Amino acid sequence: MRYFVVFSYIGTDFHGSQTQPNGITVQETMESAFATILRTPIALTFAGRTDAGVHARQMVAHFDTESIVHGALLTDHLNSLLPASIAIQDIYAVADDMHARFSATARTYEYHITEVKNPFLRGLAAQVAPGLDYERMNDAAATLIGTQDFASFCKVHTDVKTTFCTITEAHWERLGEHEAVFTITANRFLRNMVRAIVGTLMDVGRGKMSVENFRRVIADHNRCAAGQSAPAEGLYLTKVVYD
Amino acid sequence: MRYFVVFSYIGTDFHGSQTQPNGITVQETMESAFATILRTPIALTFAGRTDAGVHARQMVAHFDTESIVHGALLTDHLNSLLPASIAIQDIYAVADDMHARFSATARTYEYHITEVKNPFLRGLAAQVAPGLDYERMNDAAATLIGTQDFASFCKVHTDVKTTFCTITEAHWERLGEHEAVFTITANRFLRNMVRAIVGTLMDVGRGKMSVENFRRVIADHNRCAAGQSAPAEGLYLTKVVYD
Repeated sequence: MRYFVVFSYIGTDFHGSQTQPNGITVQETMESAFATILRTPIALTFAGRTDAGVHARQMVAHFDTESIVHGALLTDHLNSLLPASIAIQDIYAVADDMHARFSATARTYEYHITEVKNPFLRGLAAQVAPGLDYERMNDAAATLIGTQDFASFCKVHTDVKTTFCTITEAHWERLGEHEAVFTITANRFLRNMVRAIVGTLMDVGRGKMSVENFRRVIADHNRCAAGQSAPAEGLYLTKVVYD
Repeated sequence: MRYFVVFSYIGTDFHGSQTQPNGITVQETMESAFATILRTPIALTFAGRTDAGVHARQMVAHFDTESIVHGALLTDHLNSLLPASIAIQDIYAVADDMHARFSATARTYEYHITEVKNPFLRGLAAQVAPGLDYERMNDAAATLIGTQDFASFCKVHTDVKTTFCTITEAHWERLGEHEAVFTITANRFLRNMVRAIVGTLMDVGRGKMSVENFRRVIADHNRCAAGQSAPAEGLYLTKVVYD
């Protein structure tokens, strides 16, 4: 039987989501908790990977097991065992051909910034200098919408078949006096794409790049044309959608 | 010249606000940063003390110096030097007879709880079992209002002259589906008072204590009659008022 797990984590403590040789990851922490409770090795397939320091308000993974799983009970047991940095919201049975990664039709990320030092946002938002022009940044963000080749915002030397993505939502919103959030939804994202987009939009917001030049960065398909990547701590995966 | 400093801190990293032999405190961290920048020892007098793990959204302290202080510039320098867990909002000159502790006429605390595990509230709210009756808790909280002897909610063996306080505000409010906040304002608070009140109100919210018995706990003036103290991580000093 195949199950979906819906969960959230604070990325600060982890060396990213996926199992790798250096440092503790979300995946190995969760697989170890599942194995302890279900008393059998469990392999989790994540909807996507997040880099070190990146958070997830809603990540999805699937796993297969012969055991009969009571979703609510397993959720409670796992939440007791898992560290405070990971919380499971739901576990439920799905059709055998549902795949956490390949069946996902859309993903939403948020990028949070604060213009003043705020201890309660430590590790949870990137602190930036005040004075960003959000109207200009939204004018630039609007040019992201649609199906385009986003190679300009892709980490170089990654092994992907295509760098085309369909972005359906991309805008900044002020939150109170000193904070703002960038929300972006697409059918798929390339490695490092959101952080590269946010970093380049900040250049627009500071007047270092015109909206027209931002549009040209997309058209160039060349990572060197884009701005610096924004730091990991502001980034959240917030939604994964399945049909 | 006397100055007021308005600042916030996340209590998780500190062994409380006041200098003491075991572990790093907010006070020594700040005094060290002030001394580095003003190149002279600076003594800070806080509006009140907070225990280990307790947060402050708005704490006030005063200090005296012969140096000419440019508030905004000193704030920027200190924020660069201080750890991410402390942020200064404002520094301004006051009359020589203004005292951060004795001139304060009111203080407000908040206590934050979450009914579900939430990685983003780790250390920032107390997780409690769902099912609290907030209406009953508010009925009980209403009996706190006024000038009364609150010895029932005072840590035993503390050396205070009087256990009378005037509480002007005390109520619970739901925040979204899974969270709630208790807000309490008084002219002064006794050691451990808010956490003891919250712990006892939780007993009321769980049906373990009637509203009438809560009223009797106050009248008893005996700490043993009250419930357990709620954990430090949910507690925030949010406002200090001066005339």
